Amino acid sequence: MVSEPSHARAAREAGVGLVVGITDVKTRAALETAGADRVLDDIGQLDLGGLAIDPWNLTFYGFDSVHEGHREALMVTGNGYVATRGAQGERTEGRIHYPGTYLAGVNDTASARSHGRTVREEHLVNLPNWLAFDLRIGAGSWWSEQTESALEEEVRRVDLRRGVLTRTAIVTDGIRRLRVTQTTFVSMRDRHLMMQETVLEPLEWAGKIDVRSGIDAHVRNSNAGTAARHLSRPRFTVHGDALTCEVTTRHSRVDVAFAVRQSAHGQIRRQNWIDTGTAGLLHLEAAVSPATPLRINKTAAIASSRDPAIDTAAAAALRHLDAVPPDRIRLRHEAAWQRLWERYGIEIDADPQSQAVLNLHVFHVLQAVSDHTPEGAGIPARGLHGEGYLGHVFWDELFVLPVLGLRNPQIARTQLDYRWNRLEAARAAAAEAGLPGARFPWQSGTDGTEQTPGALFNPRSHRWMPDHSARQLHVGLAVAYNAWQFYELTADLVWLADRGAELIIEVVRHFVAMAEHDPADGRFHIDGVMGPDEYHDGPPTAPGTGLRDNAYTNVMTAWSCRRALDALDRLRGHLADDLIARLDIRAEEREQWSLIATRMFLPLHGRGVISQFDGYDQLEEFDWNAYRSRYGNVERLDLILEAEGDTTNRYKVAKQADVLMLVYTLGVDVLTELLDELGYQADLHASLDYYLPRTSHGSTLSRVVTASVLAQLRPDESWPTFREALDADLDDTQGGTTRQGIHLGAMAGTVDLAVRSYAGLRTRNDELQFTPRLPAELRGASFRLHYRGQALEVHLDHARLTIRSHASSAPPIQVTVGDRSVALAPGAEHRFSLS
Amino acid sequence: MVSEPSHARAAREAGVGLVVGITDVKTRAALETAGADRVLDDIGQLDLGGLAIDPWNLTFYGFDSVHEGHREALMVTGNGYVATRGAQGERTEGRIHYPGTYLAGVNDTASARSHGRTVREEHLVNLPNWLAFDLRIGAGSWWSEQTESALEEEVRRVDLRRGVLTRTAIVTDGIRRLRVTQTTFVSMRDRHLMMQETVLEPLEWAGKIDVRSGIDAHVRNSNAGTAARHLSRPRFTVHGDALTCEVTTRHSRVDVAFAVRQSAHGQIRRQNWIDTGTAGLLHLEAAVSPATPLRINKTAAIASSRDPAIDTAAAAALRHLDAVPPDRIRLRHEAAWQRLWERYGIEIDADPQSQAVLNLHVFHVLQAVSDHTPEGAGIPARGLHGEGYLGHVFWDELFVLPVLGLRNPQIARTQLDYRWNRLEAARAAAAEAGLPGARFPWQSGTDGTEQTPGALFNPRSHRWMPDHSARQLHVGLAVAYNAWQFYELTADLVWLADRGAELIIEVVRHFVAMAEHDPADGRFHIDGVMGPDEYHDGPPTAPGTGLRDNAYTNVMTAWSCRRALDALDRLRGHLADDLIARLDIRAEEREQWSLIATRMFLPLHGRGVISQFDGYDQLEEFDWNAYRSRYGNVERLDLILEAEGDTTNRYKVAKQADVLMLVYTLGVDVLTELLDELGYQADLHASLDYYLPRTSHGSTLSRVVTASVLAQLRPDESWPTFREALDADLDDTQGGTTRQGIHLGAMAGTVDLAVRSYAGLRTRNDELQFTPRLPAELRGASFRLHYRGQALEVHLDHARLTIRSHASSAPPIQVTVGDRSVALAPGAEHRFSLS
Repeated sequence: MVSEPSHARAAREAGVGLVVGITDVKTRAALETAGADRVLDDIGQLDLGGLAIDPWNLTFYGFDSVHEGHREALMVTGNGYVATRGAQGERTEGRIHYPGTYLAGVNDTASARSHGRTVREEHLVNLPNWLAFDLRIGAGSWWSEQTESALEEEVRRVDLRRGVLTRTAIVTDGIRRLRVTQTTFVSMRDRHLMMQETVLEPLEWAGKIDVRSGIDAHVRNSNAGTAARHLSRPRFTVHGDALTCEVTTRHSRVDVAFAVRQSAHGQIRRQNWIDTGTAGLLHLEAAVSPATPLRINKTAAIASSRDPAIDTAAAAALRHLDAVPPDRIRLRHEAAWQRLWERYGIEIDADPQSQAVLNLHVFHVLQAVSDHTPEGAGIPARGLHGEGYLGHVFWDELFVLPVLGLRNPQIARTQLDYRWNRLEAARAAAAEAGLPGARFPWQSGTDGTEQTPGALFNPRSHRWMPDHSARQLHVGLAVAYNAWQFYELTADLVWLADRGAELIIEVVRHFVAMAEHDPADGRFHIDGVMGPDEYHDGPPTAPGTGLRDNAYTNVMTAWSCRRALDALDRLRGHLADDLIARLDIRAEEREQWSLIATRMFLPLHGRGVISQFDGYDQLEEFDWNAYRSRYGNVERLDLILEAEGDTTNRYKVAKQADVLMLVYTLGVDVLTELLDELGYQADLHASLDYYLPRTSHGSTLSRVVTASVLAQLRPDESWPTFREALDADLDDTQGGTTRQGIHLGAMAGTVDLAVRSYAGLRTRNDELQFTPRLPAELRGASFRLHYRGQALEVHLDHARLTIRSHASSAPPIQVTVGDRSVALAPGAEHRFSLS
Repeated sequence: MVSEPSHARAAREAGVGLVVGITDVKTRAALETAGADRVLDDIGQLDLGGLAIDPWNLTFYGFDSVHEGHREALMVTGNGYVATRGAQGERTEGRIHYPGTYLAGVNDTASARSHGRTVREEHLVNLPNWLAFDLRIGAGSWWSEQTESALEEEVRRVDLRRGVLTRTAIVTDGIRRLRVTQTTFVSMRDRHLMMQETVLEPLEWAGKIDVRSGIDAHVRNSNAGTAARHLSRPRFTVHGDALTCEVTTRHSRVDVAFAVRQSAHGQIRRQNWIDTGTAGLLHLEAAVSPATPLRINKTAAIASSRDPAIDTAAAAALRHLDAVPPDRIRLRHEAAWQRLWERYGIEIDADPQSQAVLNLHVFHVLQAVSDHTPEGAGIPARGLHGEGYLGHVFWDELFVLPVLGLRNPQIARTQLDYRWNRLEAARAAAAEAGLPGARFPWQSGTDGTEQTPGALFNPRSHRWMPDHSARQLHVGLAVAYNAWQFYELTADLVWLADRGAELIIEVVRHFVAMAEHDPADGRFHIDGVMGPDEYHDGPPTAPGTGLRDNAYTNVMTAWSCRRALDALDRLRGHLADDLIARLDIRAEEREQWSLIATRMFLPLHGRGVISQFDGYDQLEEFDWNAYRSRYGNVERLDLILEAEGDTTNRYKVAKQADVLMLVYTLGVDVLTELLDELGYQADLHASLDYYLPRTSHGSTLSRVVTASVLAQLRPDESWPTFREALDADLDDTQGGTTRQGIHLGAMAGTVDLAVRSYAGLRTRNDELQFTPRLPAELRGASFRLHYRGQALEVHLDHARLTIRSHASSAPPIQVTVGDRSVALAPGAEHRFSLS
């Protein structure tokens, strides 16, 4: 059927980027015949060596029913306020396809049946599908009724630089062939606007076609296992040449409205709106010929009653639809992306595919969280890319905010507001536990209450396993950490006085109250918590009851106590006076923080190995080889062992880096200093050696953290782990989870690795500090930062680090590389030799 | 019936403050007999001379049906998020009483019949009345069924320092007398919480009483003439010991929920919730005696779906209700007020009643706008105190933000966000007029579209007069002015780059596009606008078409052009580069701003008198004496003349200062400099002389502005006008308008007069500048400021100005008094001699 190798021609014309996931033999052959760079089933095979590669395109050729959901997530177009999966417009939800559109922060709670249980859960709500598009040639069958394999020469390409998804394919009724070219984007400039432009060109025939294009509200949330209907019946209304579609979430009662305008160019014979009850579609009948193709431009505006300046969502959507002249929307969108790339782009001198994946990661991070993201959204673990973890907010901001905050502090500020606005719920959770301060939830949603499900379904055993991960109270320590980082980034004392110090102090109060003094050793101990490693939720004898003295929790508590004191010190004078009065901070509290900062207990074993928790070294060794040979992928060892009637609690295993997180968050220097002050001689190298072979990397964050720790302790060994971390979503290394959304923390974490781990950037003590340690595989890196009002360009290679400040009226900043420190004024440049 | 002069005793015990509005002869006699300081019908009589006066209490004795609505507004308790009129809990809406509770920013649009017309209008929504409280003694009639005069010894007192309203009275069934003591407050600390505490003590009898206390949702909006129902039927639900009341606004679909918990202490025989369909009431039957009074503590929490961190409004209200231990609510509330008074209090050494009224004004400004006020609220002209002007937002922030911004810049920031979030609507309004930039509406509501009604009912003529006041485009210039002031206050370049400069530049673009170059005089002219003076909406020959060259508009346009250029200059470097790219600012635009800043036309006549607009001096003189003798109060000359078939457009009159506004906003120095640069020699004294006798002060803002101009040009003549401005709301000088809410701009303006006019404070050119000019009547003043991170205490009298900075880590600031300038470091103090 393929008369010419048009895929390959398209590939050549576009300068093929990553070409993955071709399982279609026909297409593969055509591509290879045409001389495509490389055609791969799996990104794992990707090693283009010295071949030219375009790092700005992600291209999928042909159709792959197994990986379609994964591709949809990687083809998301979004702007941090709204995002739409790259689903095919002619398809609806099913085993293969999953159209999804999500508004950041628009959640709803519903009951859903799941594996024999009824669960009541809060979900990020899947909204009506504005991509809905169908056609037929003559009186043939509708596109949507054909199998996917009836489509010829399908190519889908995401232009990362411009944020535009382009799909080309040929639809056929068996005789006549119609070329479809469809471009889709969600405006990065005008947050409410989205466009889908379609061109339909008959190949060597002329005749009638019908098109139905509009919005389909027959959607539900079923991307992540359980299925729930969150939306009221849609209300469709025609307003002149626009159609509005209004829905309301059933429990949270958020009104969401789309306004859709479509303009058709060609020989239109008839057009009218159809309201099917669940979809609002423009039906077009047109005569087409090679000389008179049909073009349909669909512009959609979306608004919700959670937006600012809202009278009704429908009125707002209609206003947004008219806010920008149609011919300016794409220009403005692309210009916005251009500005983002100038600010967020990281250029690395390494293998080209690493650059390509880094670009992809920056692209998706910015589509998930941007300056368009409202305060109410938080940072969902899976972005706005799918319904994994039900759209809940965990601790990913610990990994995401360094990337965003160092380029645009305002985004970090908004995200910290997400927590600040939920202090009341966190205080209530603390009070419920009989403790002061604030207890932030492990899984957070709209109102800041704990949303962690009580049980987890194990598909291996078909049993529900109790889920105690709400004991991961360390999420609060991440909030305190992020608040302090924001202060270091901006030196904004007013913010620290108004919000930042309150976040830090309320978290500290909670952990300090949990810390019990043991007269026997004169140390403070924290019991009943879980660390980041979810394989351990209690001693083997008392599973689910939490652990004693989780090293990560204890050390971060000590660190946070110092920061609470630091905050009051920085605010000394009227700002601290106000704060002390408002939060009723007593002198003895401050003494207690001081004490705990030096007398927190840290479990150690062997020659300075930090124990993950008290008793970890007493657990049994695990036979990794046996399980790897039996199961292959052992990342979800918890599920494997439970199915065997066993439990991870018994073994010296870790789902993800836990002790090593300390090196990641604090850095070797600060951690070493802190451990000294606590009076412990820990050996970080020995700890690394101990945990590396005992970690399954069952969380995508684990490889990010491990690569970072390796970068700090053994730079020359870190690159392979970094490369593995890069592949997590692109290669869907967790085997099917990416279809439920990207792993946002891991994507951001890899971007951050280049800056914070390899360039060794820290913002500390009012300095911008670099400790470069490039591995051999990374010959150099360039990136841009915003720090205390200065815009900085950093270039480094193995020989030197150059930092250039853009002109501005900001005050000079202190830049330190190793033991050399300079005051850098705006407009100045400094070169540090690294030899 | 009055066995002892208990009013007077209460007065003595409390240290009588302002005692106004006694029309009840019996009460007056009792007070005078008991030796009350002064008993007045009218605040105009108030001249306590050297008598002691407590400036922290506003006390109303007895009942006055004519002034009850006025009193309700002055007895509002609120926190900037929610406010409740000081209505009597046993009364419902009618000619005399008007219970009102308002959530800042919760508006709804409805159709309402008004004087024969159906108007569709957006209103600040009157919410269910949580004060509802009724009782009966034995089987007697309910309190609500008695006439107000059946009540004995009623005293209502607002404790301004603590933000608590206390009412004492004796209810009687003709035989038995029951003392009622009711305290009400809306927490200034916990924004969602409100309390009403009632104590019922029988005087020398024992027996049964019934109480019904709860929430009444049978409310509508009828405080400002037209009547509209905005709320759905209420849904009442009992949750344990709490009741929720949920309502939804009909058009804007905002969910509002109250959660109410009541605890009764005494000999309770029976208690149960009653749902009347429109009210949810706790019915209590109790046995009381002098030894066992009945206490009822009602705590109400309020939430809306416009709040952050909301799942459902009802769930949030219940959570807020439990967020603070009941016994801590009042303590926290009072502590918050204490901190506010430390920050906002202005102490003047002058007549004691001026101090008392200033306190009252600070009190109400903070209850209307505080750091609890959400972004979506704006600053309604009548506070949260009533429904005057339908709760719309005009330009009052020009008068309010100097007061708030100088004490807490974050409040000013939120208010500027109100405008920034409505830029899209303002851009759409500009585009509708065929012009670029942003056109902010004269009356703004939720979504930022123009809400000015098209017509105004004249009760004198019973005719609807066309209302062209939407031509007051100068509201946009006030937005630009406020944005620049915020920058001057904070030196926050990031904010200027992100939001402030955009506000300024978009407004400037709009006015610059309106300015037409006339080759004849080489000047730029603006046509078709109205100035602040609403008596003139066009030339006599073309009423309603707007004026040519309104001096205020033209000069503020020139000033704003300079600030747009200044902003780009301050941001020079990367911040300006980003802004220029984002807003697509072309070089020729900047040249145009530069040109207009020096070539804007200013109409002058006589010896340097600035004409209010081109042609003002050609209008007829008005016979003020004739009209004053015929009508008495001629403030609403527009209505008087229209009723006579005449129009204010024909005369040299002004409803309010218009030309003089320039002196108010810019100050004499800046204005003089600007006029010089424009090439005009204007005589400000002559202009003052010209407009003073031609101004009716039909707006409460007018006397504020006039007093400020007098303070600058003739300090010794300003005090009487300042005193008149102080009386506006307390004395309801506009004759009945205060019942529809306070005049927020005027209240704030009088507070600001002490600081910006008498102390002569300006924030300009990165300096804090003082030009003190105390009139003889004002012997001294003390206040506190926040400027660029420093907390400052300022004390001045006729001999010296002392400024003391609190300790902090903020950088030094530049303080200038006259021609002396010092750098003031935190913790330092400087004394300037003024002789």
